Amino acid sequence: MKLTFLGTSAAAPTLRRNVSGVALQFDQRREWWLFECGEGTQHQVQKTDLSLAPLRRVFISHLHGDHCFGLMGLLASRGLNGGTEPIDLYGPPGIADYVNAIRKTTGTRLPYPFEIHEITEDGQCFEDDDHRVFAARVMHAGPTLAFVVHEKDRAGRFKIEEAQALGIRPGPIYAKLKSGDLVTLDDGRVIDGSTLVDPPRNGRKLVIVCDTKDASALLPFSHGADVAIHEATYATADADLAKQNAHSTAADAGRFALLAGAKQLIMTHFSPRYDQRGEGLLTIADLVAEAEKELGEGRVVAAKDFLRFEIKSIKREPGA
Amino acid sequence: MKLTFLGTSAAAPTLRRNVSGVALQFDQRREWWLFECGEGTQHQVQKTDLSLAPLRRVFISHLHGDHCFGLMGLLASRGLNGGTEPIDLYGPPGIADYVNAIRKTTGTRLPYPFEIHEITEDGQCFEDDDHRVFAARVMHAGPTLAFVVHEKDRAGRFKIEEAQALGIRPGPIYAKLKSGDLVTLDDGRVIDGSTLVDPPRNGRKLVIVCDTKDASALLPFSHGADVAIHEATYATADADLAKQNAHSTAADAGRFALLAGAKQLIMTHFSPRYDQRGEGLLTIADLVAEAEKELGEGRVVAAKDFLRFEIKSIKREPGA
Repeated sequence: MKLTFLGTSAAAPTLRRNVSGVALQFDQRREWWLFECGEGTQHQVQKTDLSLAPLRRVFISHLHGDHCFGLMGLLASRGLNGGTEPIDLYGPPGIADYVNAIRKTTGTRLPYPFEIHEITEDGQCFEDDDHRVFAARVMHAGPTLAFVVHEKDRAGRFKIEEAQALGIRPGPIYAKLKSGDLVTLDDGRVIDGSTLVDPPRNGRKLVIVCDTKDASALLPFSHGADVAIHEATYATADADLAKQNAHSTAADAGRFALLAGAKQLIMTHFSPRYDQRGEGLLTIADLVAEAEKELGEGRVVAAKDFLRFEIKSIKREPGA
Repeated sequence: MKLTFLGTSAAAPTLRRNVSGVALQFDQRREWWLFECGEGTQHQVQKTDLSLAPLRRVFISHLHGDHCFGLMGLLASRGLNGGTEPIDLYGPPGIADYVNAIRKTTGTRLPYPFEIHEITEDGQCFEDDDHRVFAARVMHAGPTLAFVVHEKDRAGRFKIEEAQALGIRPGPIYAKLKSGDLVTLDDGRVIDGSTLVDPPRNGRKLVIVCDTKDASALLPFSHGADVAIHEATYATADADLAKQNAHSTAADAGRFALLAGAKQLIMTHFSPRYDQRGEGLLTIADLVAEAEKELGEGRVVAAKDFLRFEIKSIKREPGA
């Protein structure tokens, strides 16, 4: 699983950071998913190796403009660029009204199946063979969701080259060995299938919390996260602004990640004030330090536009 | 008057060209006006010396996404950046529904007076001390406007330094001289005021035709244009596409400019195909040649993003 940050600024774009957008790519699939779609997300996608045609799902946390004003342009351009596969859109109540009003008033046609899913309850909102996605309603100004993508555990790889080295020919016997059975060969040898299979891999867990002042509603789905993305609009020194605007400080983000047992926190959605340079001004590095104080040193990354982050697959320890 | 092209691509942005947007600045005013507002226009503005606060009027030709999907983001960011002066928005019927639906479904607040003017008739749609703006309904897919900005003629400058050199002291006599009257001084000299005043300046005329397959409805307001901006989505070789999509070829743009008696044509809104390089492929230079064949050599410019174009003030010829 690979993340690409397409926008990391709060509220309005700057010359360094666009408004919110994160792409999620998968190891074995061409399709990718998009979380948030601020204005200019399609422009950012053009500057990466992603293309719009294989985009398959879009998740929107809430209907503030910096999280959704790029949606219709991106969907329209995907059609113009030859995208024909379906898109499923997930978001809070009201997202259908928003999208349908723009489609109606501008006559925007999407030449592919397009389905909108309004999420009204905490819990699983999507499942396929490899993933479950959970959503929860978190606290912000207006209905706001946060998401967890939980990859299903995967069986270990069958070591076909070792089976062949033992002189075992492909056939129905391979299925038995893959299952870890004891198998007696025609020549009398007894083979323990489990020795020919890599340990199972734990499914990875990605937590994505966009705008919030309190995402604890997502914690029941977040435990043991490999990576938690969490907004960190403000430094602790600006906690009054965070409170006023229903946003989080970097320390809030660190505490959420700690409660989620997250291995890694990636902070995003920064107020432009921390990119300014000058004596006594707080910087993004200060925000990282504040979050690390909560979660632990070396466990916090500040996102920037076009940051790529690989979430590594972890083999389960024997006996775990 | 100065034009800044913020986006010159048709339909979808490319890495070289954003979707439609043109800024118009004035000689003696800080305020500026915006024509079209495709997605990412606010990002383009950030890359110029323009800022959003002095933006005073926005004109939208029609409600295709590449001409209006940047509107709400730009208006919202203007508020976040401290803009408090009013904005007036001019567009086709339906633009109020479009804007109000987004404001309602996303809760976007604009902390300044904001008025929407839907234009339903050809003719003057705005006037202030220095300008008249005319709009006409031109032919495209759906209700579409094109605009003329006509600067009012200005009186010539009073040559105060020459009056002082003649020993004439400031006072009510200056007003008489400015009016071109014959004035008898205390010492008996008779001064012809008209010799102390520069010739009047003709008001400049700017024509802006965005998407259209036929903008002849704008011609009654366009005659003698200093500059005509006209879409040129296609080359003549792709005239079938132009017809199919209700767009113009470069030759169409040249012919419109000729009928308008325009001194200069600036083409924009190019299909991305003409930025591709390869043997036998048509380029923007070919489009310029096609338009110059209609209008005359040296009278056609192809816009590109961030092109600045000064429309010079022209002194009226004596006796004209």
